[in-house]
Amino acid sequence: MKQVNIGLLGVGTVGSGVVKILNDNAEIIKKRLGFELKLKKVCSKIVHDDVKHLVDGIMVDSYEELFDDDIDIVIELVGGYDFAKNFMLDAISNKKSVVTANKALLARHGYEIFSRAFENKVDVGYEAAVAGGIPIIKAIKESLSANNIQCIKAIVNGTCNYILTEMERKQAGFNDVLKDAQEKGFAEADPTFDVDGIDSAHKMAISSSISFGDNITEKDVFTEGVRDISLLDIKYASEFGYKIKLLGIARLIDDKIDVRVHPTMVKKDDALASIEGEYNAIKVKCDMADDTVYVGKGAGSLPTASAVVADVMDIARNIRHSSPLRIPLMSFPFNYVRKRNIIDINELEMDYYIRFSVDDSVGVLSKISGILGNNNISIKSVIQLNKGEDWVPLIVLTHKAKEKNIQNALHEIHKLDIIKDKTLLIRIDDE
Amino acid sequence: MKQVNIGLLGVGTVGSGVVKILNDNAEIIKKRLGFELKLKKVCSKIVHDDVKHLVDGIMVDSYEELFDDDIDIVIELVGGYDFAKNFMLDAISNKKSVVTANKALLARHGYEIFSRAFENKVDVGYEAAVAGGIPIIKAIKESLSANNIQCIKAIVNGTCNYILTEMERKQAGFNDVLKDAQEKGFAEADPTFDVDGIDSAHKMAISSSISFGDNITEKDVFTEGVRDISLLDIKYASEFGYKIKLLGIARLIDDKIDVRVHPTMVKKDDALASIEGEYNAIKVKCDMADDTVYVGKGAGSLPTASAVVADVMDIARNIRHSSPLRIPLMSFPFNYVRKRNIIDINELEMDYYIRFSVDDSVGVLSKISGILGNNNISIKSVIQLNKGEDWVPLIVLTHKAKEKNIQNALHEIHKLDIIKDKTLLIRIDDE
Repeated sequence: MKQVNIGLLGVGTVGSGVVKILNDNAEIIKKRLGFELKLKKVCSKIVHDDVKHLVDGIMVDSYEELFDDDIDIVIELVGGYDFAKNFMLDAISNKKSVVTANKALLARHGYEIFSRAFENKVDVGYEAAVAGGIPIIKAIKESLSANNIQCIKAIVNGTCNYILTEMERKQAGFNDVLKDAQEKGFAEADPTFDVDGIDSAHKMAISSSISFGDNITEKDVFTEGVRDISLLDIKYASEFGYKIKLLGIARLIDDKIDVRVHPTMVKKDDALASIEGEYNAIKVKCDMADDTVYVGKGAGSLPTASAVVADVMDIARNIRHSSPLRIPLMSFPFNYVRKRNIIDINELEMDYYIRFSVDDSVGVLSKISGILGNNNISIKSVIQLNKGEDWVPLIVLTHKAKEKNIQNALHEIHKLDIIKDKTLLIRIDDE
Repeated sequence: MKQVNIGLLGVGTVGSGVVKILNDNAEIIKKRLGFELKLKKVCSKIVHDDVKHLVDGIMVDSYEELFDDDIDIVIELVGGYDFAKNFMLDAISNKKSVVTANKALLARHGYEIFSRAFENKVDVGYEAAVAGGIPIIKAIKESLSANNIQCIKAIVNGTCNYILTEMERKQAGFNDVLKDAQEKGFAEADPTFDVDGIDSAHKMAISSSISFGDNITEKDVFTEGVRDISLLDIKYASEFGYKIKLLGIARLIDDKIDVRVHPTMVKKDDALASIEGEYNAIKVKCDMADDTVYVGKGAGSLPTASAVVADVMDIARNIRHSSPLRIPLMSFPFNYVRKRNIIDINELEMDYYIRFSVDDSVGVLSKISGILGNNNISIKSVIQLNKGEDWVPLIVLTHKAKEKNIQNALHEIHKLDIIKDKTLLIRIDDE
């Protein structure tokens, strides 16, 4: 069978991994496919040193050359919004199937890009956009396709998980561990996207869309990050039987969608609690297959590139068998993909961990518990620490309460002059 | 698009799950596929009560009717060897694609069945044959296809894992827990296939074949079961930092294959150590994607049926797109599938846990350690328990030793009159 030709835009971290895999594993890829995958043209401002010799002679100056007739599949690995979006839409209009790892773009403009691909009868592969080397997109779109997917719970940001793991392991504070992670290359110089939960929200928007058959975008995902987690919270979480994880949660409840990312206390015996360091994990609950969990490296050059090349192989098969759009781009056909209501987090009910920073004085607990009670919040336990300083942490664990009531109570409590610093709220996953 | 018609042989545990899913989830299946999956004919001696109303009017007396022109895909769920094999070969010769959960058959005659399917240009789906609801076959054949798979470590028998978990949880002996598991339906009346490791060996033969591109059969898999594990072993494993699991291991080493199933001490921080109860898990190590782990229910009516129906959907797409054999049946093309040498376990080197049952007398340790030393086995630690009875357990942990030397030493030691009962050997996974 004729070879399938690839055009690659961007030879950064993931791009260089793709170049390496297409070269180093060319033989096994050809054996599995029955034909060759040929990296034909590469467009990139910078090229990692270790793959320079592999792209010699195939570099092109203009990205439009990737749309030439001799290219079958285009890989977009430049990231970002505007340029990447225009590039992808251009590629699609030129009848090229596209493979991408660009979660930010798909979480914002996925529906538009997929629609354009559908019109042009080309595929878009995005396995690498969610949880790097973990094949969660294929699992949702194909392996679990006989099921109604009910719920996804996921650790999909390796940086946050690394930081939370190291805080516990080293008994160190957030900022110290972040600095260390940045030095080791586990965190970006500007860690905003990761530590503020934005990257996780992108991945939850994509994975929940294809699980439920909805067009869920980044804006739909309630998002909180991990910056305010202290070592103290990790310690008390452990004493209460929990691990703190930045969890992505997506649930379909009564034809409405609950989708959010926030620090969450996960029971120690939950499969997600044992996911450590830079590992990612996704737990999918289905009506028939029950729980399945997928674990692996969520980032890194080669694991992510492995997912990119798997997509390229899949699409190459579709090209050779003249079966484009063999699997619906969003797992469901376009005329089925809806935009159902997103449940406001204020409407949810769960248990809460609240750490107040209060005056070390008599009567504090009475004031706080009074306001909580007035807001229909029942307290499960309280720990008041004596730090011997001006202010002390007061930790409250609640029984099941409505988020709206919690927020109202916090609003009232924060007006009290006994409150000396920011309050930390961690939601508890007790399902 | 025209509907795809299904013929089903066998409405037992898994078969009734398939009937239920095809009925209950008909709508979502049709939405994802763009056409209907229609259960057209069913042949079965017995039919579970809860799905009787769903197969009314489509029961046929002779299985040959499943090969009629109006059937596109045949599902084989009767299990066993001869009848199932003949049925599948007949179906294939009649140009029907087949979906099966029959691990025993595929581990023995897979190559013959796949060859016949290849000749007849039809597909064989067997996702349900390995680890039930966990989509490990698709992960190996498609998601990881840009990789050289180096190693698989797997818990693929829920019965054994349930027994080992319950022994620890209830502090109970093997036989008590087995009996309890049988009463609860977690173990068969005749548990041989499960507790002696045979079922796990079948699954390892199948998954290692498609990982490495070899024709590995049940006979190639060194197999030991869990019958001799005692509560004492579980306790000491824990003290040494391990969990005892019935582990399937398949590795490609210097172009030879190491494939085996035996009780194994797994480090507590290994992802496989935390897999409890009836859950299964497979860890796949690849050259590019690194480690990925897949966890879920390895048995049960609906999880296994979910995998069967996913295969049916996959093959139905191939039928509608006229792309049979889109993915090579054994992950590699037939002209590539080889039969490389299997490494004799005697040639392997690892750490060992050995529990001797010895006379409670002076000089015993000296005799045993002398023989171990003469066989080049170096001892890491020894625990001699004082039970106050005729004989006592003597536990030896070795440094890395050659299996052949261990077996030679045990052979010598067993000739001593200080040995009062069977010796238990557990291999340690320290990678």
